[in-house]
Amino acid sequence: MAVIVNLIAGTPDAARIVAAAAKICYSPSGAVDILDGLTEDKTESFLKMLRDSGHLSPFEHASYTFAVEGLSRVASHQLVRHRIASYSQQSQRYVGMSGQTCIMPPSVAQNEEARKLFEEQTARAWACYEKLVELGVQREDARFILPHGAETRLVMTMNARELHHFFALRLCKRAQWEILELARQMLLLVREASPEIFGVAGPSCITLGRCTEAHPCGSPYSGMEEMLSA
Amino acid sequence: MAVIVNLIAGTPDAARIVAAAAKICYSPSGAVDILDGLTEDKTESFLKMLRDSGHLSPFEHASYTFAVEGLSRVASHQLVRHRIASYSQQSQRYVGMSGQTCIMPPSVAQNEEARKLFEEQTARAWACYEKLVELGVQREDARFILPHGAETRLVMTMNARELHHFFALRLCKRAQWEILELARQMLLLVREASPEIFGVAGPSCITLGRCTEAHPCGSPYSGMEEMLSA
Amino acid sequence: MAVIVNLIAGTPDAARIVAAAAKICYSPSGAVDILDGLTEDKTESFLKMLRDSGHLSPFEHASYTFAVEGLSRVASHQLVRHRIASYSQQSQRYVGMSGQTCIMPPSVAQNEEARKLFEEQTARAWACYEKLVELGVQREDARFILPHGAETRLVMTMNARELHHFFALRLCKRAQWEILELARQMLLLVREASPEIFGVAGPSCITLGRCTEAHPCGSPYSGMEEMLSA
Amino acid sequence: MAVIVNLIAGTPDAARIVAAAAKICYSPSGAVDILDGLTEDKTESFLKMLRDSGHLSPFEHASYTFAVEGLSRVASHQLVRHRIASYSQQSQRYVGMSGQTCIMPPSVAQNEEARKLFEEQTARAWACYEKLVELGVQREDARFILPHGAETRLVMTMNARELHHFFALRLCKRAQWEILELARQMLLLVREASPEIFGVAGPSCITLGRCTEAHPCGSPYSGMEEMLSA
Repeated sequence: MAVIVNLIAGTPDAARIVAAAAKICYSPSGAVDILDGLTEDKTESFLKMLRDSGHLSPFEHASYTFAVEGLSRVASHQLVRHRIASYSQQSQRYVGMSGQTCIMPPSVAQNEEARKLFEEQTARAWACYEKLVELGVQREDARFILPHGAETRLVMTMNARELHHFFALRLCKRAQWEILELARQMLLLVREASPEIFGVAGPSCITLGRCTEAHPCGSPYSGMEEMLSA
Repeated sequence: MAVIVNLIAGTPDAARIVAAAAKICYSPSGAVDILDGLTEDKTESFLKMLRDSGHLSPFEHASYTFAVEGLSRVASHQLVRHRIASYSQQSQRYVGMSGQTCIMPPSVAQNEEARKLFEEQTARAWACYEKLVELGVQREDARFILPHGAETRLVMTMNARELHHFFALRLCKRAQWEILELARQMLLLVREASPEIFGVAGPSCITLGRCTEAHPCGSPYSGMEEMLSA
Repeated sequence: MAVIVNLIAGTPDAARIVAAAAKICYSPSGAVDILDGLTEDKTESFLKMLRDSGHLSPFEHASYTFAVEGLSRVASHQLVRHRIASYSQQSQRYVGMSGQTCIMPPSVAQNEEARKLFEEQTARAWACYEKLVELGVQREDARFILPHGAETRLVMTMNARELHHFFALRLCKRAQWEILELARQMLLLVREASPEIFGVAGPSCITLGRCTEAHPCGSPYSGMEEMLSA
Repeated sequence: MAVIVNLIAGTPDAARIVAAAAKICYSPSGAVDILDGLTEDKTESFLKMLRDSGHLSPFEHASYTFAVEGLSRVASHQLVRHRIASYSQQSQRYVGMSGQTCIMPPSVAQNEEARKLFEEQTARAWACYEKLVELGVQREDARFILPHGAETRLVMTMNARELHHFFALRLCKRAQWEILELARQMLLLVREASPEIFGVAGPSCITLGRCTEAHPCGSPYSGMEEMLSA
């Protein structure tokens, strides 16, 4: 079971909206006139200039909404620490967890013995959850015994500026594998929706060509291609 | 000269996105399946229930981007105090202000003598600005002498939750007339784009049927109609 | 094991700072002069007036920092959804979880059979965690098998405005029991530190004298005393 | 007339609070025990390490509240664009502006002819404001004619992380002179209050030893000393 991400909404014509918002800062014209004059080429080169000059606030005008499934609560707990974003998450108070499952880390899956232990323990956790509910314990209390890796579902909205920040942190090879995989799928989706905005995105080894981490991983990405197929 | 507002972007199919995000909290299904099952009727009644129960966070998944012209810097200074929003505003450092104008409050326009004084003083302010620039003063310094009512232009993005909060504060009859007019035009636009989300919006006299202000204006709106045609 | 909260920092003389900040909005004087003139009595009555009139932004100038232990990750996942706050939380990537424990809900503790099941399952979860680590699985992956109720520790800072919002939501009898207990302890601490600011706080049955929830619990608090000793 | 800044509140023992919050992420102990073990030396070296490694979120636990006078509304309009902060500002709706003044940019003050024009125009603006009020125009409308450079007063709270961000942007030689002067005074004050937190702060020429701006000013600061005495 791996994370599944769908892009369920996004600002239409996002690149031109971002470019028009940025241009209004330096122009005597209004945004509607500016939009009229923005060809695809002008938009793309202007956005590149914005990124290069660090003028990032106009990227906030483009928003993207993702539906996420197959993510562990371990990862969702990290995810919601990004405060400049909106989340709606499946409640373990209101939704029964029977029939759901636990995300298994690849490092466990690849080790026969670890995998077996993990599966047995997971099965016991669900059996215990169901037994507790039978004994009259409310679901919101029974869930304490479920593994932290239990699957969750959520809808999340982030703007393009925050997404760039998210990709910079979470696509780094030192990020937790699951949130890295989430970030990779998200980037693939927004690149398709708004190639002018997400043409270049990721950690500093990609965007600056050199690692700015205090503790580098030692094997920086060779380029977008490696990162996106990781 | 009055404020002109255009809605230049908005989340497509916003009502269904909000409803699906809210439903995921209480459902064992994922957002994509939920979206498939959401008819227009179900969406509308579900959104009404959300508003009534105060479960407002799902409304954050819908975003709206406005282009605003003909707004005074008096009003924009208030506007940008709403921190859960994104702004790109015409810079007086980089854009020359010659040929621009000052917003005249209706109370001034309706008083012959006041109007004349205001116009003369405005003309002198621009003349002084231009003279200062001629004398070698940078535009960013010369602008100190322009009136605070000088026109500005901006692009602004707010999500539907923050918009409801904005409408509650700024459509109150006690709000500053200019930001009230801005709010009114914004509401007209988002009602057209997302009628299910903005069917009911505004101050407490509209949404609750009674005023919750500490200092009521004494003449609450009779209904949406009065407020929208104000 | 129950949640333990300590207040490790707070804005000194917070009530006067909030009052001075509020007064500056309506006064021709600067904040330093205003502070000089603020007696204890004036401060208290002025803060009451602010709360009553809904002018809440000045309360943002007072900040409080809490050290929290004995909280489950179930509760911390909810807690960090409050985005207008700062959190530093014990990492399960970097800190080994051996020797830590699982929070047991009172509803489980009070049921002999449930309690026994819960304890056995918890012990097995830790044994599995340790076995996985022995097998070479990284701690960040082994933790997937630990129960969601595992204890965490964190430091959290919130301002007084957000705290009032937090208390309104989380001291409601319908809130999850653990976050309610956290909120109760936090309120006891800030009431001692800043009685003028937190004299009245909590859900609408306390602050308004009537419940504004869509689904009332049916047994509103009789007063602050009941709520604080709950 | 120049900007006057006072630090009217700050987190007591801020450096240790930040260090304890950071340490909790990597430690099996709780924050209270960690605080006990934190000597001054350990605190200082640990904070340096945090800054160097880019682990900045713990700096959010330290807050600082400033009283500002003698700032133009030109600068305050820029200032409040920093959204991760709290502001209480003198209202031009509720406070009469008679007897207040306009901030004069140094470039104007240093040019005899410009200065004379500026002063005359300023006097006329206030005379017009007062005349409008006499004619029955409300203060909130009469203020449209006052210069944008009119003085304002405010109370502002920022946490140490945001302050570092603020200093990085606003102490750059390319920032507007007035907000640069505000930033300089703020930094002097917080350095005195929390030397371990603000020992190094400012634009990239100071913190990294090289300019990362797209359009460098060409004369980077030689060090903290030059910047603080600027």
